[in-house]
Amino acid sequence: MQLNNVEIEDTFAEAFDIFVSRFLITAATEKFARIAADETVGFGSSVIMCPAEAGIDRYVPPSETPDGRPGYIVMICHPKKDELEHQLLERIGQCVLTSATTAVFDAMGDDAEEKLKVGFKLKFFGDGFESKDEIVGRTVYKVPIMSGDFIIEGELGIKRGVAGGNFFIMAENQASALVAAEVAVDAIENVVGTITPFPGGIVASGSKIGSKYKFMAASTNEKFCPTLRGVEGVVCEVPQEINGIYEIVIDGLGEKEVAAAMKAGISAAVKVPGVKRIYAGNYDGTLGAYQIWLEKLF
Amino acid sequence: MQLNNVEIEDTFAEAFDIFVSRFLITAATEKFARIAADETVGFGSSVIMCPAEAGIDRYVPPSETPDGRPGYIVMICHPKKDELEHQLLERIGQCVLTSATTAVFDAMGDDAEEKLKVGFKLKFFGDGFESKDEIVGRTVYKVPIMSGDFIIEGELGIKRGVAGGNFFIMAENQASALVAAEVAVDAIENVVGTITPFPGGIVASGSKIGSKYKFMAASTNEKFCPTLRGVEGVVCEVPQEINGIYEIVIDGLGEKEVAAAMKAGISAAVKVPGVKRIYAGNYDGTLGAYQIWLEKLF
Amino acid sequence: MQLNNVEIEDTFAEAFDIFVSRFLITAATEKFARIAADETVGFGSSVIMCPAEAGIDRYVPPSETPDGRPGYIVMICHPKKDELEHQLLERIGQCVLTSATTAVFDAMGDDAEEKLKVGFKLKFFGDGFESKDEIVGRTVYKVPIMSGDFIIEGELGIKRGVAGGNFFIMAENQASALVAAEVAVDAIENVVGTITPFPGGIVASGSKIGSKYKFMAASTNEKFCPTLRGVEGVVCEVPQEINGIYEIVIDGLGEKEVAAAMKAGISAAVKVPGVKRIYAGNYDGTLGAYQIWLEKLF
Amino acid sequence: MQLNNVEIEDTFAEAFDIFVSRFLITAATEKFARIAADETVGFGSSVIMCPAEAGIDRYVPPSETPDGRPGYIVMICHPKKDELEHQLLERIGQCVLTSATTAVFDAMGDDAEEKLKVGFKLKFFGDGFESKDEIVGRTVYKVPIMSGDFIIEGELGIKRGVAGGNFFIMAENQASALVAAEVAVDAIENVVGTITPFPGGIVASGSKIGSKYKFMAASTNEKFCPTLRGVEGVVCEVPQEINGIYEIVIDGLGEKEVAAAMKAGISAAVKVPGVKRIYAGNYDGTLGAYQIWLEKLF
Repeated sequence: MQLNNVEIEDTFAEAFDIFVSRFLITAATEKFARIAADETVGFGSSVIMCPAEAGIDRYVPPSETPDGRPGYIVMICHPKKDELEHQLLERIGQCVLTSATTAVFDAMGDDAEEKLKVGFKLKFFGDGFESKDEIVGRTVYKVPIMSGDFIIEGELGIKRGVAGGNFFIMAENQASALVAAEVAVDAIENVVGTITPFPGGIVASGSKIGSKYKFMAASTNEKFCPTLRGVEGVVCEVPQEINGIYEIVIDGLGEKEVAAAMKAGISAAVKVPGVKRIYAGNYDGTLGAYQIWLEKLF
Repeated sequence: MQLNNVEIEDTFAEAFDIFVSRFLITAATEKFARIAADETVGFGSSVIMCPAEAGIDRYVPPSETPDGRPGYIVMICHPKKDELEHQLLERIGQCVLTSATTAVFDAMGDDAEEKLKVGFKLKFFGDGFESKDEIVGRTVYKVPIMSGDFIIEGELGIKRGVAGGNFFIMAENQASALVAAEVAVDAIENVVGTITPFPGGIVASGSKIGSKYKFMAASTNEKFCPTLRGVEGVVCEVPQEINGIYEIVIDGLGEKEVAAAMKAGISAAVKVPGVKRIYAGNYDGTLGAYQIWLEKLF
Repeated sequence: MQLNNVEIEDTFAEAFDIFVSRFLITAATEKFARIAADETVGFGSSVIMCPAEAGIDRYVPPSETPDGRPGYIVMICHPKKDELEHQLLERIGQCVLTSATTAVFDAMGDDAEEKLKVGFKLKFFGDGFESKDEIVGRTVYKVPIMSGDFIIEGELGIKRGVAGGNFFIMAENQASALVAAEVAVDAIENVVGTITPFPGGIVASGSKIGSKYKFMAASTNEKFCPTLRGVEGVVCEVPQEINGIYEIVIDGLGEKEVAAAMKAGISAAVKVPGVKRIYAGNYDGTLGAYQIWLEKLF
Repeated sequence: MQLNNVEIEDTFAEAFDIFVSRFLITAATEKFARIAADETVGFGSSVIMCPAEAGIDRYVPPSETPDGRPGYIVMICHPKKDELEHQLLERIGQCVLTSATTAVFDAMGDDAEEKLKVGFKLKFFGDGFESKDEIVGRTVYKVPIMSGDFIIEGELGIKRGVAGGNFFIMAENQASALVAAEVAVDAIENVVGTITPFPGGIVASGSKIGSKYKFMAASTNEKFCPTLRGVEGVVCEVPQEINGIYEIVIDGLGEKEVAAAMKAGISAAVKVPGVKRIYAGNYDGTLGAYQIWLEKLF
């Protein structure tokens, strides 16, 4: 099918199960909430070699947060539940507790399938001077620190979510694909319950599983490298008119959210001049539990 | 002594040895260089529980980079050399290689005490399609990726540097200490060869070694918690007029750079109304190799 | 009354009639929509000496704009209708038409009391090559420019709105008042139909009408200058414990919106440590048509 | 000639005389200095319909400013000297004096051909409570305001500068031209003594003098509109392979600075994939005093 004269390939994104946490970081100002959120989700593009996949879901204005201060909801994801808890303790302990004026609240709410005692465990930083309190019905801990008190909700919810939603933007040159990728990420930012964990939300280097080098678990997907067109030994799958490709990868609370993000991102990307084709990555259905077909999104 | 009517305590910051890497990330635009740098240095505030200490040293305009594109110099630090190499491979592989339009060049230059073959190892992502090239006399590898080619210098220099330079800003309230901390970080940004690895450059939760809880290696430094003033069992060292304290922590290429950053930060912080006192953290000289005395900076 | 231990003075903000325009600037990416919006609303803090009062109302995600691209709604205000039209032609013609990838759509909708033919007039820039078109039921003009086509809706709605909604944040020092002002602006950003036209939304230099110098129509409000406390000839109205004051000024579509913004801003500001008192500016009801009492907001 | 395989047209940019002011805005933090600078230079793209041409020259770190605080140097330009003074009074009075924590210092230094008594005139806002002072040898005025004191140097230097330096980036699509324009602006930011006054530094709608409509002094330059290629009555000068064009316009302290900025911008732009040709705008030498030939830059 075509959308705004851009070819939407008849294929699907293959997505996977992952454990997802979702919590709110508030601070005195939007600036400091953002600083804490950015540090917390950094070094979190892919669990291939990062300790977690992480990103900012959305901004929450002061009128909608438990403590009346501006905040950002972040999501941290990992295939293993105990590793996810470990990441929550490390990332909140080192990147939020240490940030100026911050507090942490659960943002999974009723979607939670399980509660992890993250706040309960981090409160011990208070060395006995910590105390229990309540904010709008939530059990929180107050940990005295040099700049005042750090507040954290006792339990943070997690659930089984979906990772690896994706689509490829193929354009007549790199710049066009890049602008389209930016605008796709802008559009996805507004889909609640999803993150685009790669830097700036964009993947420059889509990979295939395996390599001719035995020590590499993943390597460049040469079939989709425009600069390898015509190189001996490469079965190029990039159409002749395509010279730039970026991939958008999405993790979300569930398949529905990931599909909505894919739809929002593709709808925005096809409006950029020079974009020719939208594609998606899969392993023929052999690996992931979810098949999100591009054409069915529209 | 006093500076702008602010008391500079007669004490010293105790700093430590650490291995430091320093490299340049360039991209098509300043925006994308920044995105890659931010992802690369995220989750990197303190090696207590983060896998590295990391930060952005400075922006480099297109006219001064090897490939004529805008870039950011980042520094990644770790007490152990093999862990530092591991971090370089993971962070560059997952946060720079995956970022749109990026390239990586050594920024340690002649200061390097050793060269790590980071680019040489990451090139294998090219699965045999990578190639060797030269840019202004530097040996680089070209790795074909979906969006074009990723360029990385074969070797990145490291050296023994200094971590844990610090000072405390004590003010009559939290907001005043916070504004002073912001401006101190603004000032330090201009000191080449240093980073402030904590979120936004600011530490909200200075810690002491050990805890009453055996499972905690570090805990809140209750002597410096304004909200614990007068609480039973706390020997409060916070003067009566102080209600907000933030700490700035600095890692650098050497003691000279760390001291210059401390001087620049303190000089800026004392100009903020409400700041009363500058302090520094140490362990009576029992742990770190460096003693940077506040008064000697001026 | 008190809110979070902060005194809310029993007084009112005196607000005025003003003509308000409200339109949407979209662009290929959020970044370029923001650049165009920022340029358009610059030099627009107060009609005392600026050619208009102007600000950004809110961000609109791609899924909610007429052309499916990200955008910002801006408001431009002037006491005189013909001057407002003049400002719209100049600011859109010089700051949006000239900006990369932009389009302009009406955002007043059914609230409009009158429609100005702004797009109809600006289309003549096309020198005869412009054309009429329709986007989701809106009549627009396509003006060919070097980078593609500029799209602008033929008519933009205006209405009688309210200017000069305000409150003062009084704190124990300047930094505390400043942080509280930042967070108040963060909170107001979320109130649809309002802007805070001063730089960063904050007024540092509240003024009184008149001056001892005959050539000055307005001058510093010495009664509210903390540094003039105790100076001969000054009847200081700043309580002893106050050393920093910032004012927030709000323009809006109507009194209801302005009141909602005042409430949101005050609710957020009182949470900042060091804030002691909220005040509002008025002329005893002699000048403006609206009296917004602080206590009635809560 | 060719640069990085991009054709550099054998033509020149025609530039004009203009009066230039250059001053430094400092603030407590980089953020607030930036806010004040942005408001001050807004609505300042072209004197065709804006009251001035204005932009940010560069950031100055705390260690290099008269008051040891972070700041931005801005430039405001106007063809008429008395209009320039008027703009300085309005823009500093309404956009800097009103901004949180700001001060203003001359940044023209020895380059000044004349000194305007801007600070001397603005001090009257103090209504008699203002006072004279000295900061590192500069005569300044202290004006008491609600948030503390506003400091402004008594005299600000101006000189005859050069406006209208320019080049066109022509690319195979709009996105490529846009990314190249971004990176050109990034590069020019580093050339001291120059600004790019249009939104984001980029001109989307290059114009010609005159129009078929008698009431229009300027209109779209149809010869350079890619979407008008092949339209009857249009003598298209856009080569067949070009589908996107952006112009960069530069104002500077002198011809040397403008030429340096053009060189820096072009050198950066030609590195972006899809850029095919660099051009410049002139009126065959009939209007401006300066002819800056593209080929002579290299």
